[in-house]
Amino acid sequence: MTSSQDQQETGRAEVVLSIDAMGGDQGPATVVAGLALSADKNPDVRFLLHGRKAELEKLVAKTPSLKGRVDIRHADDIVSMDDKPSHVMRNGKGTSMWSTLDAVRNGEASIAVSCGNTGALMAISMVRLRKLPGVSRPAIAILWPSRSEQGFNVMLDVGADIRADARDLLQYALMGVSYARNGLSLARPRVGLLNVGTEEHKGRTELHEAHGLINATADDAEFDFVGFVEGGDIPGDVADVIVTDGFTGNVALKTGEGTASLIRDLLREAFAYSIISRIASLLAYPSLKRLSKRIDPRRVNGGVFLGLNGTVVKSHGAADATGVAAAVRLACRLAESGFTDRLKARVASAAELAQDVANSAEDGKDKT
Amino acid sequence: MTSSQDQQETGRAEVVLSIDAMGGDQGPATVVAGLALSADKNPDVRFLLHGRKAELEKLVAKTPSLKGRVDIRHADDIVSMDDKPSHVMRNGKGTSMWSTLDAVRNGEASIAVSCGNTGALMAISMVRLRKLPGVSRPAIAILWPSRSEQGFNVMLDVGADIRADARDLLQYALMGVSYARNGLSLARPRVGLLNVGTEEHKGRTELHEAHGLINATADDAEFDFVGFVEGGDIPGDVADVIVTDGFTGNVALKTGEGTASLIRDLLREAFAYSIISRIASLLAYPSLKRLSKRIDPRRVNGGVFLGLNGTVVKSHGAADATGVAAAVRLACRLAESGFTDRLKARVASAAELAQDVANSAEDGKDKT
Repeated sequence: MTSSQDQQETGRAEVVLSIDAMGGDQGPATVVAGLALSADKNPDVRFLLHGRKAELEKLVAKTPSLKGRVDIRHADDIVSMDDKPSHVMRNGKGTSMWSTLDAVRNGEASIAVSCGNTGALMAISMVRLRKLPGVSRPAIAILWPSRSEQGFNVMLDVGADIRADARDLLQYALMGVSYARNGLSLARPRVGLLNVGTEEHKGRTELHEAHGLINATADDAEFDFVGFVEGGDIPGDVADVIVTDGFTGNVALKTGEGTASLIRDLLREAFAYSIISRIASLLAYPSLKRLSKRIDPRRVNGGVFLGLNGTVVKSHGAADATGVAAAVRLACRLAESGFTDRLKARVASAAELAQDVANSAEDGKDKT
Repeated sequence: MTSSQDQQETGRAEVVLSIDAMGGDQGPATVVAGLALSADKNPDVRFLLHGRKAELEKLVAKTPSLKGRVDIRHADDIVSMDDKPSHVMRNGKGTSMWSTLDAVRNGEASIAVSCGNTGALMAISMVRLRKLPGVSRPAIAILWPSRSEQGFNVMLDVGADIRADARDLLQYALMGVSYARNGLSLARPRVGLLNVGTEEHKGRTELHEAHGLINATADDAEFDFVGFVEGGDIPGDVADVIVTDGFTGNVALKTGEGTASLIRDLLREAFAYSIISRIASLLAYPSLKRLSKRIDPRRVNGGVFLGLNGTVVKSHGAADATGVAAAVRLACRLAESGFTDRLKARVASAAELAQDVANSAEDGKDKT
């Protein structure tokens, strides 16, 4: 056995996740309950749990499946949902969120998970983990229920930044490909660039430029570029990775969630309408349950911050134990596949590729 | 009786719509069937029908409810869904679409309806009808099923232009207010500006500037400005009019449609799963039918082009007779309320208001 194989095996046996126990809407009891749900399915994972020690010790003691697998790190303060990112960056040193990210920064854990305030989490992640060399804007990637075989598409950026130029969009494409490989086990993901039409002449200038850049790197980076896609393709089966700027991605994400939630409520109303429809709803219960499970946002709970020295999984602030468990399982999966290092390598080679493409475009211009 | 009242009454008795019979995916038979459906409910409306005369005469002759209410205008050519707008602008003179818009230009009809290619329809509308004085970018407004009391919200722009500056967004707000008053009978619509967060410091620069402009005109233009809204509020009950640029609006619209369509298909699958679920679906049929009617895109079929000398209702290309009828009924409603003239007056006074606001902002700067 070579030493490198050795290291790999030791690495696999010691996956450690850094978990922010505070800051979610439901409080630390829900986070610990979520950890318990995921702990059974991931027996090799250990947890660093950050927050108020006395409270957390009691919760963990009551949870047999976590016995011997949790280290608690005390932090007095909590980042609230209303705290401004700039305030937290200056004054957040004593918070559980800060402590959670520092454990990744120090190399004690490979991935961080938090249900806290997204803006603050991104701000602290930027200062504590710093951007990967070659990345100018990190991105938040999410999984979107879709018609694709794997049941989900990746979309990024959904709100790390409100702007993205052509180079950023290329980075998002490459980071999204890496995430789809490690998170969804797709060997050769299909990448689409979000626009208002699929014709090549449509849309904004930076999108045309990004179209060229992404197209030129597809072969080397081993993905298929399907060109421009539209909003309707986000839940579709045309692309596995949908690339867009954080403004558009955030509006699309929230529009999709809002539409799904409206339909859910109207469905409930429709079934409460008469005695017959109530009987129907009892018979239909297993069917509706299956549907609801298929599009349950809790099952795909976890936006992933990409482009930093370390990966951060952002669980929904309102997540219940099932939602927290989904985020923790996603973190386990990414940690076990060595995602952070793979992404780093991918981004480094991408920077070279992009430089090559830019150079050859310049050469082309010189010749004309 | 004064002569002005006379004119009003005569005006109401002679609502004329200009209808493009060709260019939809389903052909002229569907358009005529849609006209027939709407004709009964709008007995005072007459139709100018544009397309291949021989074909249309046969179709109309077979439709008793249209007897004596349709004038056919012959046009040889048809704008296809694949035609580029620039090509149609140069070569489209002999098309039914061109003829349809010219009838509005000449004052023979007050509103045009077409199921044809959106890009081409907007391009010809721009050259034949021209922009209203004071409007730099026309917009396409749609109705979105929502939790609001009236069941729908207005969103604009959903794709007339891919850009919008602060002034354009103010114009959209004012045009959207006018549309909500005349199309949804809301005396004092609530207006929201689409952004990635509701906090005032979030989002792009032009949005902050538009926030100030819209806020400053709300009282004079008699609407309520609720500030920034998010994607989840488009189908919500926070604002009746959602203002955004055409790129974001188009992505949001198609994302919402795609999400609704995915859920519809998954619901169908869920009910086909077992014998019990099939029985359940029979009992649930009236409930599901009610739901489906509530969010049926055909019921709100009709994007409206705003900001031109004349109003154009764009029906969905794939619309069936029910869809066409919805678009025609919307056109009737807008024509009967004198919408085009009201919008014109609104935009003219808005241009003054905006100038006042800009001037007072300049004065403010001078003083500091």
